[in-house]
Amino acid sequence: MRTVLGLLIIVVAAASANVGAATDTLAIVGGTIIDGTGAHPVEDGILVIEGGRITAVGDHRTSVPESATKINAKGKFIIPGLMDANVHLILDFWPYTLARYEGRYDELALEAAQVTLKSGVTTVFDSWGPRADLVKARDSINAGQNVGSRIYLAGNIIGLGGPFTADFLPAAKDILFDAFIQRVNARWQENVGPELLWMSPEQVRREIRKYVHQHIDFLKYAVTGHGSGEEQFIEFSPRVQKVFVEEAHRAGIPVETHTTTGEGLYLAIEAGVDLMQHCEQTAGPERTPPETVKLIVDRHIPCAIFARTDRVLAWYRERAASMPGVRRWLVSDENARVLIKAGATILLSTDGGVLGADQTQSATWCARHPPMDSLLTLGEGEFNWLRAVIEKGMSPMDALMAATRNIARAYKVDKNIGTLEVGKIADAVILDENPLLRPENYRKIFGVVKDGRVVDRNLLPTKRLLTGQGQHGATSPCT
Amino acid sequence: MRTVLGLLIIVVAAASANVGAATDTLAIVGGTIIDGTGAHPVEDGILVIEGGRITAVGDHRTSVPESATKINAKGKFIIPGLMDANVHLILDFWPYTLARYEGRYDELALEAAQVTLKSGVTTVFDSWGPRADLVKARDSINAGQNVGSRIYLAGNIIGLGGPFTADFLPAAKDILFDAFIQRVNARWQENVGPELLWMSPEQVRREIRKYVHQHIDFLKYAVTGHGSGEEQFIEFSPRVQKVFVEEAHRAGIPVETHTTTGEGLYLAIEAGVDLMQHCEQTAGPERTPPETVKLIVDRHIPCAIFARTDRVLAWYRERAASMPGVRRWLVSDENARVLIKAGATILLSTDGGVLGADQTQSATWCARHPPMDSLLTLGEGEFNWLRAVIEKGMSPMDALMAATRNIARAYKVDKNIGTLEVGKIADAVILDENPLLRPENYRKIFGVVKDGRVVDRNLLPTKRLLTGQGQHGATSPCT
Amino acid sequence: MRTVLGLLIIVVAAASANVGAATDTLAIVGGTIIDGTGAHPVEDGILVIEGGRITAVGDHRTSVPESATKINAKGKFIIPGLMDANVHLILDFWPYTLARYEGRYDELALEAAQVTLKSGVTTVFDSWGPRADLVKARDSINAGQNVGSRIYLAGNIIGLGGPFTADFLPAAKDILFDAFIQRVNARWQENVGPELLWMSPEQVRREIRKYVHQHIDFLKYAVTGHGSGEEQFIEFSPRVQKVFVEEAHRAGIPVETHTTTGEGLYLAIEAGVDLMQHCEQTAGPERTPPETVKLIVDRHIPCAIFARTDRVLAWYRERAASMPGVRRWLVSDENARVLIKAGATILLSTDGGVLGADQTQSATWCARHPPMDSLLTLGEGEFNWLRAVIEKGMSPMDALMAATRNIARAYKVDKNIGTLEVGKIADAVILDENPLLRPENYRKIFGVVKDGRVVDRNLLPTKRLLTGQGQHGATSPCT
Amino acid sequence: MRTVLGLLIIVVAAASANVGAATDTLAIVGGTIIDGTGAHPVEDGILVIEGGRITAVGDHRTSVPESATKINAKGKFIIPGLMDANVHLILDFWPYTLARYEGRYDELALEAAQVTLKSGVTTVFDSWGPRADLVKARDSINAGQNVGSRIYLAGNIIGLGGPFTADFLPAAKDILFDAFIQRVNARWQENVGPELLWMSPEQVRREIRKYVHQHIDFLKYAVTGHGSGEEQFIEFSPRVQKVFVEEAHRAGIPVETHTTTGEGLYLAIEAGVDLMQHCEQTAGPERTPPETVKLIVDRHIPCAIFARTDRVLAWYRERAASMPGVRRWLVSDENARVLIKAGATILLSTDGGVLGADQTQSATWCARHPPMDSLLTLGEGEFNWLRAVIEKGMSPMDALMAATRNIARAYKVDKNIGTLEVGKIADAVILDENPLLRPENYRKIFGVVKDGRVVDRNLLPTKRLLTGQGQHGATSPCT
Repeated sequence: MRTVLGLLIIVVAAASANVGAATDTLAIVGGTIIDGTGAHPVEDGILVIEGGRITAVGDHRTSVPESATKINAKGKFIIPGLMDANVHLILDFWPYTLARYEGRYDELALEAAQVTLKSGVTTVFDSWGPRADLVKARDSINAGQNVGSRIYLAGNIIGLGGPFTADFLPAAKDILFDAFIQRVNARWQENVGPELLWMSPEQVRREIRKYVHQHIDFLKYAVTGHGSGEEQFIEFSPRVQKVFVEEAHRAGIPVETHTTTGEGLYLAIEAGVDLMQHCEQTAGPERTPPETVKLIVDRHIPCAIFARTDRVLAWYRERAASMPGVRRWLVSDENARVLIKAGATILLSTDGGVLGADQTQSATWCARHPPMDSLLTLGEGEFNWLRAVIEKGMSPMDALMAATRNIARAYKVDKNIGTLEVGKIADAVILDENPLLRPENYRKIFGVVKDGRVVDRNLLPTKRLLTGQGQHGATSPCT
Repeated sequence: MRTVLGLLIIVVAAASANVGAATDTLAIVGGTIIDGTGAHPVEDGILVIEGGRITAVGDHRTSVPESATKINAKGKFIIPGLMDANVHLILDFWPYTLARYEGRYDELALEAAQVTLKSGVTTVFDSWGPRADLVKARDSINAGQNVGSRIYLAGNIIGLGGPFTADFLPAAKDILFDAFIQRVNARWQENVGPELLWMSPEQVRREIRKYVHQHIDFLKYAVTGHGSGEEQFIEFSPRVQKVFVEEAHRAGIPVETHTTTGEGLYLAIEAGVDLMQHCEQTAGPERTPPETVKLIVDRHIPCAIFARTDRVLAWYRERAASMPGVRRWLVSDENARVLIKAGATILLSTDGGVLGADQTQSATWCARHPPMDSLLTLGEGEFNWLRAVIEKGMSPMDALMAATRNIARAYKVDKNIGTLEVGKIADAVILDENPLLRPENYRKIFGVVKDGRVVDRNLLPTKRLLTGQGQHGATSPCT
Repeated sequence: MRTVLGLLIIVVAAASANVGAATDTLAIVGGTIIDGTGAHPVEDGILVIEGGRITAVGDHRTSVPESATKINAKGKFIIPGLMDANVHLILDFWPYTLARYEGRYDELALEAAQVTLKSGVTTVFDSWGPRADLVKARDSINAGQNVGSRIYLAGNIIGLGGPFTADFLPAAKDILFDAFIQRVNARWQENVGPELLWMSPEQVRREIRKYVHQHIDFLKYAVTGHGSGEEQFIEFSPRVQKVFVEEAHRAGIPVETHTTTGEGLYLAIEAGVDLMQHCEQTAGPERTPPETVKLIVDRHIPCAIFARTDRVLAWYRERAASMPGVRRWLVSDENARVLIKAGATILLSTDGGVLGADQTQSATWCARHPPMDSLLTLGEGEFNWLRAVIEKGMSPMDALMAATRNIARAYKVDKNIGTLEVGKIADAVILDENPLLRPENYRKIFGVVKDGRVVDRNLLPTKRLLTGQGQHGATSPCT
Repeated sequence: MRTVLGLLIIVVAAASANVGAATDTLAIVGGTIIDGTGAHPVEDGILVIEGGRITAVGDHRTSVPESATKINAKGKFIIPGLMDANVHLILDFWPYTLARYEGRYDELALEAAQVTLKSGVTTVFDSWGPRADLVKARDSINAGQNVGSRIYLAGNIIGLGGPFTADFLPAAKDILFDAFIQRVNARWQENVGPELLWMSPEQVRREIRKYVHQHIDFLKYAVTGHGSGEEQFIEFSPRVQKVFVEEAHRAGIPVETHTTTGEGLYLAIEAGVDLMQHCEQTAGPERTPPETVKLIVDRHIPCAIFARTDRVLAWYRERAASMPGVRRWLVSDENARVLIKAGATILLSTDGGVLGADQTQSATWCARHPPMDSLLTLGEGEFNWLRAVIEKGMSPMDALMAATRNIARAYKVDKNIGTLEVGKIADAVILDENPLLRPENYRKIFGVVKDGRVVDRNLLPTKRLLTGQGQHGATSPCT
C-alpha cells in the first residue's frame, strides 16, 4: 500500500490518448465528508473508490483495501462533484468564432468542458447548442479519449432558431453570406427549429420522434421565446407542449423548458415538464403570481434559476434609470428570492460558456456587465451562484444540494451521480476549507476526482481556442 | 308627391355642418331588389324609407306614402349597403404620414370612411387603429356632423404594439425621436399593448375591463403575433384568452381575433370567440388541418378571409421562386378555398386603407405588389374580393351575403343592418347592372343610400389628405 | 415733439400685414453709444434715425429733429444690431419636421428669423438650406410683410447632398419613401448637389452660372465634406474651386467655404475666397499648421469660428475618454484660440437653428450635448459665443466687432449695416447694462431697433411651429 | 542532350520544400515566338533559357546548348508570361474569411498567386492588401519556398481605411467586436490610413517616408475615395499628392493612383504619377473631358483600365433601368473605348481575387454580377479582359502588349520582365493555338514557364482554402 502526499501520481494524463481503464482503487482518507444528501458532515472520514465507483464511505473506521492508493485529506473537505444545470458549451455564437472554428465546434465544446472540470464542476447540462458537435465532445469524453466534465445535452431548444436568426443575432444576416448563415442555423435547428411553430400537433410529433433518437440526453423546448426585447411570446399551444412531454417520456428522457413569463411557467407546469429553466422569469417586468409559486412548490417542480450576488445587484441598481432592462432583472431577483423562501427545489443554473476576450473586453460588453461575480463565465459563474443564493437566505447545505443532488434528481440521473453514496460514480471535489462556512471556499480546490480518477487540473484546457484569444492583443478587462 | 330624375335633390350636403334630421321619406321604385337574405331577387320592387329606416319592401304593389321623394330605379338593382369586416381607416402608419398629420388622425380616418362610402361600402369594421381618433371620426359621422361610412371599431389589437414597434415598423426607431415614437405608440396601445404579455390572468382582466368601456364596438385580440418574418408566435395562454372573451361578452360586445397559424385558429375556437380574422392563415407555410376546418364549419365560427383574384395569384406564382413569402401566400389561398368549399361562414375582409402615392408608387411597393386587383386599396379591394371568391367557386348570392348579412351577424349588429328588411336602417346601393351576373357590376354604382339619405358621392372625400398626395409630384403607378 | 417712456408706442406691429413705411423719425437719447467701429463709447449720446437710416450720431450736443419720437435711453447702452455669420434657419432636417411641414418650410425659416430678432440679432447669414423657401422668408421680411431678422442666404452648400443623403441623415432612406426623399433632397440640392463632384470645370461653371442668379446673397461651397465620421474628404479640385470664386465674383456676390481640415483651409485661401466657415476645423484631430494660420492673418481672410465656453469644454473634457469625437472638439478649441491670439479676423458663427423639443429633450441628444451654453440654439448661441471668445482672451470690443462690423465687412454689406454710423441702416440693440463689462449683459435687452423701427419682441415668434413643440408632451430638458 | 516529349520532367515540384537552383538550361524549340515587343512573330523559333534568364531567342538557326533540356513546341505559340496590373490577392475581405483565416492571410495570398500562375499570369501587381502578409507570400515565392506568380505589392492604398471601415464594409461594425475590427483594419492601414486626410504635407511626408521602406514595390495612393455611392471625393490636395510622388521616387519605386473621377485623373496627371488605375473612371456618370484624354495620351501616362466584354455590357444594358449604378458602368465603358481609340497606353487590370463560393454563389452576388466573363475572378478575368479590349477595337498585338510589356514598363520593371528578349527573366506561356487570331486561345495553355522553369499546373493551388470552399455545401453558381 502506497501513500501519496500529493495528487500527482495517478492523475489523468489529460493529453495522452489512452487514459487507462478505471480499475484503480483509490481512498480519500482523513477529510470531512459532506455527501450531498443533506446528512451531517462526517469528520475524519474515508471514501473508497473502486472501478470508478464509490464502494465505501464512512468514518475513520471504514475499511480501506490494501491495493488502494491513498489520498491524505486531513483537514480537507470532500463534496460531490459540482453540477451546472444549464450551460452552453458553445456560447460564443458570434460571427467571428463561428466562422473561425467552423467544422471544429466540437473542439470548442471540449475546451469548455475542460474549463468546468478544472473548477470542480464534474457534470454539466448543455441546454442549447449544435447537437452533433456536442454529441461528439460528450462521447469522446465518455470514451476516455478526452478529459472533461460529464456532458448531458439537449441540442436545440425546440422551436428556436439558430444563432443567426431573429432569436439570437438578427443583424448577422446583414454582413454574412447566406450559405454560411444557413449552415450555422441548420447545425443548431436540425428538424426542430421555428418551422414547428406553424405545425399541427401531429406534424410536430413526427419531428420530435425523430429528434429524441438523435442521441440527446434530455429534451428542452421553448415555452416562451428568446427575443430580448420588450415582448415575450408563447411558442407552443398547450396541446403541442403535451406532445413534447409525451414523446420525451416515451423515449425515456426528461423534458425541460425555456420559460420566461409568468404564464409560461403556468403552461409548463400544466404540460407536466420535469424541470424548468428561468423560473425566476429572467427578464420580465412582473412578479410571478403567488398561485404559480405555490404550484411549483406543491408539485415539486425543480427550478433552475439565475442568482445574482448582492454586489451585482447593487451595480445594476445604480444603473436602473439609464440601462434598459435593468429594472426587469431586479424584478427577476425578487422572483428568485420568493422561490427560495417558499422552499422550491432550486437548481444551480448559469447559462455559462466560454467567451473570447474580444467580446468580454469590449466596451459594449463592459457597459452592460458588472465587473464582478459573472454568472456567464463558465467555471466561475457556479461559485458566484453559490454565493448569491446564500446571500438570499438559502442554507449552505441547501445551496450545496442545489448544485449537486437536486440537479441529478431533476435530470433523472441520481442513480449514478449527485451524492457521495455507495454505488455512485466517484465524482468528488476535495476542498482546502469548509464550503459550508463560506461559499468562497468552493474555490479552494485541492483536487478534483472524476470517474474515480484524479484530474490533472494544470493541463486544462488541453487546447486553448477561445480561452487563448487574448493573444491577439486584447487589453484590459472591464474595470 | 315629387318625382326626381336624378339623385341630386336630396343628397347629403356633405360639406355642410348640419345635414338635417333624417325625417324625409324616400321610395326607391322599379328596380330589382336583392335583399341580402339569400331570397330570390324581387323585380320591379319598391323600397320605402322613413326616418332613416326601411318601412316597406316588396314588389310593385307595395304602397308608397304620398310625401315620399321617389327615386326611379327602373332597370337598376338594389342591394344592401356593402360591408367590410376588416379595414384600417388609418393604415398609412409610416413616419411621413404620422408626422405630417399628428393631431389630425381623426381626419385621416374620416377621409378613409368617405372613400369607402363612395364605393357603396356603407359600413366598415376597423380592427386596428388609434382608438380615440377613430371614436372621434365615428361619432362625428353618427352625429351627422360628417358624411362617411358607418364605423365600428376595436382600437388596438390587444397585445400588439403600436406602429413604431417591432410588430410593425422596427426601423422607425432608428430615425425618429423617442418622444414622437412614444406618442404614436401610446395612441394605439393605450393600456392593452405588449405589456399584457407578461401579466397574469387577473392583471390582464383589470386592463381589459377598463378598455372595453372606452367606447369600442368590439374587442380584437392577437392570438398570434404580427411579425412578418419566418416565425409566428402565440401571444396569450388559453386562460388569458378566456379572459378576453368573458370581459368582452360581459360588456356586451363581440370579440374577434388576429389568427395566423393553424394552432392559433384552434386556440381561438377553444376560447369561444365570435369571429376570426385571417382564417386562411395569411402567411403560413402549412395547410390548415382538416379537423380545424371541421371545427370552424361545425361551430359556425364566422371567418373573415382575404381572397386574391386569379390574376393576382398568377402574378405571384411567377415570382414564387424569387420573392420571399410568396409560396406562403399560395398556401393561404389553398386554405381559403378549402374553407369556402367546406361551407364555412365567410366574411369579406381586406385590411384595406388609404395609402399615399409616395408609398403605392414606390419601387419597393411595386416590386412586391401586383399591379392589379389590390385588396388593400379601400373602396377597391372590396370589389376585388367579391370577384376573387366567385373565382374560387362561391355562389354570387353567397358572395353578396359574405359582404353584408354574414358580417352584420358576426358582429351582432344584424338587428339594424345587413339586409333590406323592414325595420332595418336604410343602407343600400343602387347598381346599374346585376351584381349576381358579374361581380364587376358592383362597381357600376348609380347611387348610395345611407341612413335613408342619398349620398352625394361626387363630394367625397370632402378633404383630400392622403388621397391628394399625388400633388407632390408622384409619377406613374406600378406597371 | 413727443417723449416716450417705454417702447410701446411705435413698435412694429408684428402681426399686422402692413407695418407702414419707415418714414418715422426716431431719436435714442441719453445712452452710451458703442458704435461698433472700435471707437471709444460715447456717453450721454444721441442717435437720430430718419427714414430707417441713421442721420446723426454723437454726444448730447447732437441735434434732434422736432418731429422725432424720443426714446429715453438714460443709463442704457446702444450697440449695432448683432449678426450671426452662420445660421441655418431650417436646421431641424429630421424626418418628423420635414414631413410635418412639407410645403411650409418658409414658415419655419420665418419663425427662426423671429427668434433671432427677439434676441437682438438683427441680421443672419443662412449658409445652408432650401433656397426657395429661404428666399420667400427673406423677401417677405424685406417687403415688410413679416417681421424678422434681415436674412442673407446661400441656399445649398455647393457639392453637398440634401438632408436625406449620406452627407446628413443616411438612415433616413431606410424608413422614408423615395418620393419624399427625392422631394426633400431636390429642395436643397437644386442643380448644385453632389453630381458636381463628377463634373469637369466647364460643366461646373455652367451650373454655377445658373445658380448665382437664383436670388442668393452669397455662394458657399464645400471645400471638404460634411460627413461626421473619421474621414474628411476634399470635394473639389483647385481649378473647380476657382470656378466658384470667379462666378460668384462675376455675379457680384461674396463666396465662402465649408472648411474642416488643415488642407481644406489652405485650398480655400489659395482659391481666393472671401471668408471661411469653421476655420478652427470643427472636428479634426490635428492642429492647424502655423503657416496656414499665418496665411489667414496676413491675407486678412475673415474666419467664422465656433467658440465654446469654458463650462462646455470642461463638460467635454470629463467625457473625452468615453465620448467619440470629443478629443477632436478639444483640438478645434485649441485651433480657435490660436487664431484669436494671432489676430485673425474672427466672425461670430453658431450653426444655430430652431430644434424641436422632441430632439433637444431626447436622451440621445442629452447624452452628447452639454446642458449649458448651447451654440446651436438660435438666439442663445450668439450670447454664449460672445462669452466664450472673451474667455479665450479676445477683448470685449473685438468680440462686439466680431458680432457686427467684421461680419458685415466679410459679406461685403458694410456699406449698409454693421456699425452705428451716419448713413447706415438703423439696426441697433439697447441694453440695460454695459456689454463691454460682462458678456452676459448682451442678454439684458431693453429694446431692439431694426430698420429704424422698434421691434415688439413680445409678439415673437408670431407663429409657434417648432418653438411650440413642447405642447406634445415633451418633458424635462437635459439636466 | 535530352529531348522531352512533354513537360513532366523538369516541372517545378510545387509541393517540395526545395525546388532546386535555377541553373538548368532549357530550350523551347519549334514554336512561333511572339516576343511582346510588337515585333512580327517568329515561326519555328528557338528560345534558350539559362540560369532562369533568356540567353538566346531567334529563328530555327539559333544555337541550342548541348546541356539544354528541349521542349518541343512545334505548332505552339510562345508569348511572354502574362501580367495583371491590378489584383488583390486577398480580395475576400468579408467577415467570414477574415475571421476564419486570421493569422493566415499570407496563405490566402499564396493561394491566389498560384491561381494566377496556373493561368499563365506569371506576374501580378497587388494594389491593395495587408502589406505584411503580402510581403510574406511574395518573399516565400521569390525565395523558392513556394510556387506562385511573381508578386509586386503596394500594401494599403494611401488614405483608405481597412476592410471594416466606411470605405469598404461599413456594416461590419454592427456585428463584429471592436478588437477584431481594429486588428483587421490596422493590418491594412498601418500608418497610412485615413488619418492622413487630416494631416499637413509635412506630417504626411513623415508617414510616407516610413512606409516606402516597408518592403513595398510601388506606392499607390487614393486620388479619389472608394465609396461606392453617389458621391466621390478627392482624398488629397495637390501639394500632398506631390509628397507621395516625391517620396516614392526618392525611394526608387513607382507611384500609381486610385482615380475614379475626371478631376481625379487631372489631379493625378498634374502630380506626376507613373500610372493610374481606373482611367475609365469605373463608376462615374460623366464622360472624361477630351482635354484630359489628350493629356493622358500626350504624356504617355499608362492607364490601367477595366474592360468588359460585349456580352457583359449587354447583360448590364438590359438592367440599366432597374439596377443602381449600371448606367455609370456603361459610361465608363465609353470612356474606356475613347482611351483605346485615342491610343493611350493601356494596361490589363482586373481587380481580380479569389472569392469563396459562399459569396459568388449567393443570390445577392448573382443579382448584381453577370453569369459570364467575370473580371474579378483571378486567372479568368485576364482572359476576359483580353477578349473585351479586342472587341473594343484594340489590335491583338496591342492587347498582348497591354498584358505584358506595357505593364512592365509602367511599373519600371521592364529591365527584367515583360518581353521575350535576351537578358530578361524567362517567364513565358506556351499556347496550343495562336492568341493573335482569337483571344480565346490564351486559355489553351500547353505550359507555363516562370523563372526559367516549367510549372506543374496540376498541383496548383497547393493548398485549397477559398478555392475549396464549395466543400461546405454551396450549390449551383449563378445562372
